[in-house]
Amino acid sequence: MSVDAETPTFSPRVQQLLTQMTLEEKIGQMTQLNLSAINTTGDNKDVLLDSAKAAALVRDFHIGSFINGEAVPAAQWVRYCAALQRIALRESRLHIPMIYGIDHVHGASYVSGTAIFPHNLNLGATFNPELARLTARATVLESADLGHRWIFAPNLDLGVNIYWPRLYETYGEDPLVAATMGAAFVREMQTNSEISPYKVAACAKHFIGYSDPRNGWDRNNALIPDQRLQEFFRPSFQAAIDSGVKSVMVNSGEINGEAVHASRAILTDLLRRQMGFEGVVVTDWEDINRLVKVQKIAPNEKEATWMALDAGIDVAMTPYNTNFCRFVKELVQEGRLTPARIELSAGRVLQMKDEIGLFENPMPRADRLARVGDPVLRAQAVAAARESLVLLKNQNNVLPLALARVKRLLVLGPSADSRANLCGGWTLAWQGRPEEAYPKDVPTLVEALRKEYPGVIIETLPYRNTTGKLLSANVAAAAKRADAVVLALGERPYTEGLGNTSDLTLPEDQQVLARAAQASGKPTVLIVIGGRPSIIRSVAGSSAAIIWAGLPGYGGGTALAEVISGRTNPSGKLPFTYPQFAGHVSNYHHDNNENSLDLNDFDAGFGQFGPKYKAAMLTEFGEGLSYTSYTYSGLTLSDSVLTGLAGKLRATVRVANTGPRAGQEAVLWFLTDEVGRIARPVRLLKHFEKQPFAAGQAREMAFTIDPLRDLSYPDGQGRPQLEDGWYTLRVGSQMARFRYAGKAAAAEARAASGSTD
Amino acid sequence: MSVDAETPTFSPRVQQLLTQMTLEEKIGQMTQLNLSAINTTGDNKDVLLDSAKAAALVRDFHIGSFINGEAVPAAQWVRYCAALQRIALRESRLHIPMIYGIDHVHGASYVSGTAIFPHNLNLGATFNPELARLTARATVLESADLGHRWIFAPNLDLGVNIYWPRLYETYGEDPLVAATMGAAFVREMQTNSEISPYKVAACAKHFIGYSDPRNGWDRNNALIPDQRLQEFFRPSFQAAIDSGVKSVMVNSGEINGEAVHASRAILTDLLRRQMGFEGVVVTDWEDINRLVKVQKIAPNEKEATWMALDAGIDVAMTPYNTNFCRFVKELVQEGRLTPARIELSAGRVLQMKDEIGLFENPMPRADRLARVGDPVLRAQAVAAARESLVLLKNQNNVLPLALARVKRLLVLGPSADSRANLCGGWTLAWQGRPEEAYPKDVPTLVEALRKEYPGVIIETLPYRNTTGKLLSANVAAAAKRADAVVLALGERPYTEGLGNTSDLTLPEDQQVLARAAQASGKPTVLIVIGGRPSIIRSVAGSSAAIIWAGLPGYGGGTALAEVISGRTNPSGKLPFTYPQFAGHVSNYHHDNNENSLDLNDFDAGFGQFGPKYKAAMLTEFGEGLSYTSYTYSGLTLSDSVLTGLAGKLRATVRVANTGPRAGQEAVLWFLTDEVGRIARPVRLLKHFEKQPFAAGQAREMAFTIDPLRDLSYPDGQGRPQLEDGWYTLRVGSQMARFRYAGKAAAAEARAASGSTD
Repeated sequence: MSVDAETPTFSPRVQQLLTQMTLEEKIGQMTQLNLSAINTTGDNKDVLLDSAKAAALVRDFHIGSFINGEAVPAAQWVRYCAALQRIALRESRLHIPMIYGIDHVHGASYVSGTAIFPHNLNLGATFNPELARLTARATVLESADLGHRWIFAPNLDLGVNIYWPRLYETYGEDPLVAATMGAAFVREMQTNSEISPYKVAACAKHFIGYSDPRNGWDRNNALIPDQRLQEFFRPSFQAAIDSGVKSVMVNSGEINGEAVHASRAILTDLLRRQMGFEGVVVTDWEDINRLVKVQKIAPNEKEATWMALDAGIDVAMTPYNTNFCRFVKELVQEGRLTPARIELSAGRVLQMKDEIGLFENPMPRADRLARVGDPVLRAQAVAAARESLVLLKNQNNVLPLALARVKRLLVLGPSADSRANLCGGWTLAWQGRPEEAYPKDVPTLVEALRKEYPGVIIETLPYRNTTGKLLSANVAAAAKRADAVVLALGERPYTEGLGNTSDLTLPEDQQVLARAAQASGKPTVLIVIGGRPSIIRSVAGSSAAIIWAGLPGYGGGTALAEVISGRTNPSGKLPFTYPQFAGHVSNYHHDNNENSLDLNDFDAGFGQFGPKYKAAMLTEFGEGLSYTSYTYSGLTLSDSVLTGLAGKLRATVRVANTGPRAGQEAVLWFLTDEVGRIARPVRLLKHFEKQPFAAGQAREMAFTIDPLRDLSYPDGQGRPQLEDGWYTLRVGSQMARFRYAGKAAAAEARAASGSTD
Repeated sequence: MSVDAETPTFSPRVQQLLTQMTLEEKIGQMTQLNLSAINTTGDNKDVLLDSAKAAALVRDFHIGSFINGEAVPAAQWVRYCAALQRIALRESRLHIPMIYGIDHVHGASYVSGTAIFPHNLNLGATFNPELARLTARATVLESADLGHRWIFAPNLDLGVNIYWPRLYETYGEDPLVAATMGAAFVREMQTNSEISPYKVAACAKHFIGYSDPRNGWDRNNALIPDQRLQEFFRPSFQAAIDSGVKSVMVNSGEINGEAVHASRAILTDLLRRQMGFEGVVVTDWEDINRLVKVQKIAPNEKEATWMALDAGIDVAMTPYNTNFCRFVKELVQEGRLTPARIELSAGRVLQMKDEIGLFENPMPRADRLARVGDPVLRAQAVAAARESLVLLKNQNNVLPLALARVKRLLVLGPSADSRANLCGGWTLAWQGRPEEAYPKDVPTLVEALRKEYPGVIIETLPYRNTTGKLLSANVAAAAKRADAVVLALGERPYTEGLGNTSDLTLPEDQQVLARAAQASGKPTVLIVIGGRPSIIRSVAGSSAAIIWAGLPGYGGGTALAEVISGRTNPSGKLPFTYPQFAGHVSNYHHDNNENSLDLNDFDAGFGQFGPKYKAAMLTEFGEGLSYTSYTYSGLTLSDSVLTGLAGKLRATVRVANTGPRAGQEAVLWFLTDEVGRIARPVRLLKHFEKQPFAAGQAREMAFTIDPLRDLSYPDGQGRPQLEDGWYTLRVGSQMARFRYAGKAAAAEARAASGSTD
């Protein structure tokens, strides 16, 4: 395809089809309906095809795509998709296959019995892109054969607002982490050859700026100046595009008041012209209607349809009816949309179908269904969960609790004996399913601890009675009997608007429970489970150990039990900045001025220690403890000055495991632009690499600094700004400064720096 | 002066001076030093002139302005300013008077014995611009004679972030309220004739966007897209400029990463070219240095100086030394700044001095000092306090507590017997002064209640013991003895960085105190005192009545006692949106999509009632209860359609006091643009008017809608966007719709609307 996305070069098959198709047939390719329109119940979930409904929709409206469902057995999905595809091929005049889209966002989560991986925020904590790749691999291995050829993943939103109810779907607050993880996911999902002859289209979502509403409510207005959008929100999507992602889903909210679904500046000028995307742009759920009902920028659905198409969308996830088809047709007939505009979008959809081989291999197959539920994949999900846990506090090395040291453990809290809470939303169904619907062979935390601690009494108490009343009466006595108490606290499953929140403070009931346990004087291990970091200030001080567990998926119980026992040495590092206070959300890449005040805050009552910013944060981005210790030494730069655009500067540091046991260490390289024309972030992650370290092992780790990639920042139009001056490089405890002298001569810069290198 | 601010036409005197002045003399006019450079102690406060220091600074550096101090007797100020002015006139070769600047932000608060008015947030609650005018009048009456000719007020920042430690200095979250109050203040301050022959220069601060950091820390980065800046942040400053304000002080923070002190786009393109400002732009405290030390956009102070001058500043509040003079001179000598650029700024300063008559009347006078401490002004401050209290809750009409109904009142909390807490920062000194330094004739709440309730026992208990420990042991018994309990809770005085906060939740100690009192079963009246709304959700439900008191100043104790007794009927309405939750800050002019979700929030645990947005708010903007009741009826529009730019539409409504007693009602007119090209706010205040209503009295209130003023909104460049379509007008309980048809013919629009008017 050509570089100018406005005049793409489609494949011969697509070109041929476009010459044969009617306007209505082209519009049908742009239309995506929910399964409730074609199942027997009209409900959003039941995967039960009503053939007559489906046939009518394809025959009359030429619908090119269907979506949604919930976890049913693989064989049922095969039957459903096969029947639907047969109808599509039969009822479509030109025998164009439909493409089925689905939200498998952490494994094939809408199929029964699959491996449920940690959500993306946990993957971010691993700093291990291989685990993002394995998530994508398991997803396609367990769903491509079933007819799921369009997967609405990865989520590449930047997790900069911890209140946002979809935080856990992101890889965290760092653009480089999100870009690296996302690219690994996209490449694996779209190029995996084990699913041959099938291919699958990934979908980078939600373009762009969706993750930063002003408060904790989903689908809202975000205030994101152009420069910030370019520097922080663009890189993850750019990486996916550069990795060939075939589709992009649009942000349901607004940026600066501008509804993204109606923004030509964002969907065409930025996405296609600046970023070079040539694939399919799909709306999110009912979002053309939202332009009328919610954002109120269009007086009616027809105008909204025109706006969205004018802005640049290709496919409408309408999702309940075919009004979109009618409105588009009328708009063409009225001359408000050109036939070429319709052909462009229809062509993109057909091109995507062609590129994933849907014309050659439209039908699902049932002969490889043994892959679904493969224990190897399940084991990989557990391995990912292990690396995703972050040890935030470990007073007096209370952890690990070696088997020999304990006779009785007390496990408390709403997530002590829950599978659902470890998995969060988008597991088996949109909002997760009731506890009893989860597979019994997936261990809860209590079950995993019983397995991990043979011979030890693992006691638990119900959290609430049947009327919902908190049960804490017996906690004190039970805690006194135990050697230690594990508190599994946090949130229930949710996503989107059902996860809206106005205060992340740990609910009062859970605080009461924690304090009752802590009053016993026994060491407590606080585990924070859920899609967002609960504010735990009131109980953190009295907790001997704290583990951020996020949403680790099916492996969560096992991984947590192993970290508690010491079988697993934790290696996760926080992919976001964990605040102390409900009213203070900030990120590691905040501006310099936020931590430069030296006044002490008398209101919040914190003391004289350290920089103020750190005192407002429980744990910073990139931090996480281990049962061993790492020493960084000997940071060396290949030169003290870097010149031109082609120059490179190689930094090396020696990292040694100086502790008693093996572990894994994610080495994070941060750069600070000491002086910038606009106020620059305190630091930016520029490189990361995770390696295993045997006890006593040392390695040289390296980072080659590229001026344009690592030192420049974009202006509001995405043009790189590369400024002469000093930069600080930090890795572990090590720090070095160097100078960039693009304009001055290298020799002059060397002289000025006083270097004798 | 000409419209093109780059080539102003100065007065003959100024032109003449400029032809005679050396470069160094011009630079001196641009330099503002703190009194610590010229007093005997070197401290920021002591108003004790060291003549030798002052003479040297004027002689050697031609310093044109001095600032700061704290409350000392008027006669001392006269002596100090007279001596300083004599030195300036003597040591300056051309006998140019210095101008003394000071932060009188709610009355002449840096002079002993003056009237301390409510802070601006309270004035916003009055919806009565006359009270802003009276504040300005009292300020100049009590300070102009003393030599204070440059008053750093009004604060025109928009109070959209309730965490910001300077919220109370703003008129609240609404642009129209801020613009109306600010204009009234500026006009009075600059044109008051009672201070003749003196005139005073006001200073609109802090240009622009200072008030909206991302968290509760002062002097931070704000994310404000251009359109939002134009629509919400510009109007208050535009109103001040249109009212002739002679100076503007600059935002110490950044907008979108751009340090405002170094932003030519903001200080020249926006402020001068778009907004037409021709006066003096002064930095805030040490803000050129901050470009180096904090925002790190300049490598050293000299570069920062160049940036700030290039951006458009005229005067540097340096404030401790004369480095600025040296750097500017070097920059001119090196050809990086032109002599014309220096002449422009120096000319503006001289022009301001000339316009306020400083050349003719440079010396303070002591013959009218009886005005300082005038009881009439003090009474006006009390009157302003009365109108500024907002009754948020009054269950079962527990208030007023009529004298006949009570024998004993218990008054608790850190503000029960405090003057300082009623006044906040910027009272007598920067951060306020210790309690014992306040005048004893200003009644605390307890004292005022004793006066208001003769014969009633007003009991109070100390809040903390001498070691700071909360004293709540006797609360239960004391509450049981009382007929009602008044809880005076909230914040201590602060401003700027010392008021930084990360959680607005009412401190735990105060919650404990409130619960102890409420456990008695006696009715509790919760009074929230302080610069920001404390989050009171945990104690609000059990409070029989709640009064938001803000920072009412010297009249606060009296006004509160009168509202409690019923002598004063409360008429204040909230000038901001009071949230329920620490993590949810929003404003009444939020976007449509925020309250359109109909999902109920299960996390925050609130129920099935009402629109979700309202449930997240304790009280909305513009709400406030009264002891009488008002009925709105018969909203009528003069037409159902408005056309063209000259068309007008007159709306009238009948407002009746249907209750048993007299009161005042602020009638607020809101407009909603039903469909806009960008997502429009839920509603915008477009007109307000406050009137007294006798019991049973009815009035017709009117609002004439002007298309350009009331229906258009600016784009990012300030160009008005006026869209055809429907608008909703709301006043009280009344609602009416009309259509704007600028492009279509009026007749056609009428037909379409089905109107028969």
